[in-house]
Amino acid sequence: MENSQNKQMLLEQALLESNDLVLKDLIEEMPTPEVIDFLCKFSIEEQIEILKTTSNEIKGKIFSDFDQETLYKFFNTMERFKFSRLFTFMSSDIRADFYRELSKQEQIEIIPYLDKKIREDVIVLSAYPPETAGGIMNTDFATVGSHMSAERAIAKIRKDAPSQKMIYYIYVVDRNMKLLGMVTIKDLIMSEPEQLVEEFYQEFIVFADVNEDRESVAQKIEKYDLVAIPILNSLNQLVGIVSHEEAIDIIRAEHTEDMEKFMGIVPSEDEVSYLSTSPIEHFKRRVIWIVCLAAIGLISGIIVHHYQHALEKMIILALYMPMMAATGGNSGSQAATVVIRAMALGQVESKDWFRIILKESIISFLLSICVGLLIFIKISFFSHAMNIPDGFSAYYIGFLISLAIAMQIVTSAIIGAGLPILVKRFGGDPAVAASPAITTVVDITGLLIYFGIASVALNI
Amino acid sequence: MENSQNKQMLLEQALLESNDLVLKDLIEEMPTPEVIDFLCKFSIEEQIEILKTTSNEIKGKIFSDFDQETLYKFFNTMERFKFSRLFTFMSSDIRADFYRELSKQEQIEIIPYLDKKIREDVIVLSAYPPETAGGIMNTDFATVGSHMSAERAIAKIRKDAPSQKMIYYIYVVDRNMKLLGMVTIKDLIMSEPEQLVEEFYQEFIVFADVNEDRESVAQKIEKYDLVAIPILNSLNQLVGIVSHEEAIDIIRAEHTEDMEKFMGIVPSEDEVSYLSTSPIEHFKRRVIWIVCLAAIGLISGIIVHHYQHALEKMIILALYMPMMAATGGNSGSQAATVVIRAMALGQVESKDWFRIILKESIISFLLSICVGLLIFIKISFFSHAMNIPDGFSAYYIGFLISLAIAMQIVTSAIIGAGLPILVKRFGGDPAVAASPAITTVVDITGLLIYFGIASVALNI
Repeated sequence: MENSQNKQMLLEQALLESNDLVLKDLIEEMPTPEVIDFLCKFSIEEQIEILKTTSNEIKGKIFSDFDQETLYKFFNTMERFKFSRLFTFMSSDIRADFYRELSKQEQIEIIPYLDKKIREDVIVLSAYPPETAGGIMNTDFATVGSHMSAERAIAKIRKDAPSQKMIYYIYVVDRNMKLLGMVTIKDLIMSEPEQLVEEFYQEFIVFADVNEDRESVAQKIEKYDLVAIPILNSLNQLVGIVSHEEAIDIIRAEHTEDMEKFMGIVPSEDEVSYLSTSPIEHFKRRVIWIVCLAAIGLISGIIVHHYQHALEKMIILALYMPMMAATGGNSGSQAATVVIRAMALGQVESKDWFRIILKESIISFLLSICVGLLIFIKISFFSHAMNIPDGFSAYYIGFLISLAIAMQIVTSAIIGAGLPILVKRFGGDPAVAASPAITTVVDITGLLIYFGIASVALNI
Repeated sequence: MENSQNKQMLLEQALLESNDLVLKDLIEEMPTPEVIDFLCKFSIEEQIEILKTTSNEIKGKIFSDFDQETLYKFFNTMERFKFSRLFTFMSSDIRADFYRELSKQEQIEIIPYLDKKIREDVIVLSAYPPETAGGIMNTDFATVGSHMSAERAIAKIRKDAPSQKMIYYIYVVDRNMKLLGMVTIKDLIMSEPEQLVEEFYQEFIVFADVNEDRESVAQKIEKYDLVAIPILNSLNQLVGIVSHEEAIDIIRAEHTEDMEKFMGIVPSEDEVSYLSTSPIEHFKRRVIWIVCLAAIGLISGIIVHHYQHALEKMIILALYMPMMAATGGNSGSQAATVVIRAMALGQVESKDWFRIILKESIISFLLSICVGLLIFIKISFFSHAMNIPDGFSAYYIGFLISLAIAMQIVTSAIIGAGLPILVKRFGGDPAVAASPAITTVVDITGLLIYFGIASVALNI
C-alpha cells in the first residue's frame, strides 16, 4: 500500500542500480498509468531498454495504455517484427485504432508478422467507422456454450483467457456465435459445479448493434450499470464488447462537444488536444458562427438607425444601451443553459414547454425586480443632471429605463428557454440554440423594447 | 434476446392473465431499469401487489434502482417492518442515502426492525458527508485473507456473497481489516487451487481516502480503468468501495456544474431536477451574477457618457455599438470555452499561458479579417448617405469602424483566454471566468477601443 510517489522513487532507484529483477517486479505490479508516468521521463530508446526486462504480456498491457502518438514513436523506433509481436498482447480495440491511423504502406509492413487470428481481428475491427459501436468495441470477451456445466465453463475460461480478456461477463453463444444470453462469473462460481449453463443463464440481456451510434452505447452502459455491453451484427452474432471505461471516455467527449456547440464552435470529429491543433483548424471551427452572428448583429444597427431621432433628442438612452443588451444576454443564456442541460439529462421534454416557459417567466420576473431596482436607483439619484432633458424628471426617466430592462430580462429568459425547445421540436440539437445565438436575438428584441417604450412614453 | 418493447408486452400479458409464475420469472430475468419502466405505469399500491410475487432479493435489487422520491412513497405505503426487511437486500449505498434523507422520527421507526449488522452499516454509511468518498461508497465488497489458498478463497466468496455483492475485485485484508492488496476473480480462477493468495495478490493498488472529494475518486476510477476502488479510513482499514457506475454519475454531475458555472449560475449541492426545483430556488442561484454583472455593466454607461459629444456629432457610431459588443462577447466566449475545456481535460496548464495567448491571437486575427471585411463592405456600399457627416467619406468611416471591430475581436479573444488562466493561477476555478463575466468585461474594453479610435481619427 505504498503511495504513488514512493513507487516512482523505488523505480528510479532500481533503474539507477540496474537491478533488473526489482525493476521487472515493480513494473509488473504497479498500475499501468503510474508505469507510464514514470516512462514518460525518458526517451523512446531508453523506454524500450527499460521495458526489455518485462514479459510481452506486460508490455502489451502498457502499450494499450499509451496514446496513439507515443505508440507511433515506438512503431518507428522498434524493429517491425518486434513491434508486431506486441500486437498479440495489446487490447484489441487499441491496436485496431492504431492500425486504422497507419498509412497503407505502414499497414503492409506489419501485417506479415501477425498471426492469422490477430491479423483478421485487426483488419475487421479497424474497418468500422470510429463513431459507431463497431469502431470502439474490442474482441477480448469470453464465451461458453449453453450445454456446458458450470465446472466445464470455468475450465474453458481458464484455458481461453489470455491477459487482456474480460471475464466478469461471460457470453453464452451457439455454435454460430449467435448470442443466447450471458452469465456473470459470479453466477458461475455460485452455482453447483454440475449445473448446466442453460439452466441459469440470463436470457434477457441488453445489447447494442454494431452500427449503433457510440453515444447510444454509452447511454445503455450507464442506464443498466453494465461492466460491458455485447455488440451484435445483423445476424445476432456476437462480434465484440464495449467496456465501462469506454463509456466514460464517450461521455467526456460528449461533454466537450456540448460546451463547444454552446459557444458556437463546430465540434471536431475526434477528441483533439488544444495545443496540438493548428490555428487554422481552430479558425475553421469558429469562423462560421462569428461571421453569421455579426451579420445578424447588423440588424440591431437598422433598429438604432430607425430610432436615431429619439437617440439624438435624448442621449441618455445611449448610456444604458450596452448594459441593456448585456443583461438580456445573461438572462437568456442562463435560462438556455438550465433548459438544455435538463433536456440532455432527460428531465424535461418538448411537451413540457408550457411548464418551462411559466417557470422561467416567474424566475426572470424576480430577477427583473432586483436589476430594475438597481437601475432605477442609479438613474434617479446618481445621474448627471445635464443628461435629463428639460420637462422630464430623473425619476420618470429612471422608471422608464428600468421598466425596459425588466421587460428585457423577462423576454430574454423566455426566448432563452423557448429557442432550445423549438430547435428540439424540429429535430435539431438544442445545444446549438445556445449562448451566442440567444445573445444576438435578444440584442435585437432588447433594442425594440428599449426604443419602443422610450418613443411612446417620452413622445419623441 | 427479445427487445425491450416485446418484454414490456410479455409483462403486461402475464399481469392481465394473473399468471404469477410467468410474471415472477420475467421480473427476475429482465434488466432492472426495464422492470422499473414497467412498474412506473402503476400506482404504488399496484406496484406492491405486482412485486409480491418476487423474492426479497429481487425486490431489494429493484428498490436499489428506484429514485429517492419513489422509495419514500413505498416507505409511506408499506408496513414499516416489511419495508425494513427489504433494507437487507438493497445496495448499501442506496439505503444509506435513503436513511440520511429521513427525519429523525422516521429513522427511529425503522431501526428496530433491522439486523444488528445492517443497522450498523446504515448508520455508519449515512454519517459521511455526501460529497466525500465515504458519502458515496458502499459496503458490498468481498474480502479474503492472504494466507488462504485460491480454492479456500473461492469457497469463502461463495459462502459470503449475497445478491448485491461485487466480487470482480476481491480485497486482501489482515485480521484488523487493514487492506493489504487485492486479487481479481480472474486471478483466483486462473491460479492453481492450492496456490496461496499471498503469493499472487497485487500489492500496489489504487485506493482513496474516506474523506477524499468524490470528484477525485471518480478521476482515479477513470484514470486507472477500475471496476471499483477501495476506500480506506485513517488506519488504512477497508471501509467501503466506490464502483464504476458511481464514477459516471459523478462525471455527469460535474458536467452540469461546469455548464452552470459557465453561465453564471451558482451550482446546487445535489443533482436536482429542473421541474421539481422551485422558482425561488432557481432565482437564488442566478440572481447574484445577474445583478453584479448589471452593476458592472453600468461602467459602460460611464464610458458612453464620456464620449457623448462624439456620439452626438456622429450618430452613425451608435448604429454599430450593439454589434461591436456582441461580436466581442462571442469571440471572447469561444476562446474561454476552449481554454477552460482544455484545462479541465489536463491538456494545458497555467504555465502554457504564452502559447495559449499566442495561439488565440493568431486565430482571432484571422476571424477579425473576415468580420472586418463584412463590416467594411456594409458601411462603404450600403450605408444611408445621411449617416455620413460632411467632410468624411463612407470608405474612411467604414475603415475605422471595421478596424475597431477587428481590434475588439482580437482583444476579446485574448481576454477570454487569459481570464481563466489568471483565475486558475490564483487558485480559483477557471470555469467562473466564463461567458457572462467575459462578455461584461469586453463590453467595456470594446467601447474604449471604439470611441478611442473614433475620437482620434475623426478628431471629434
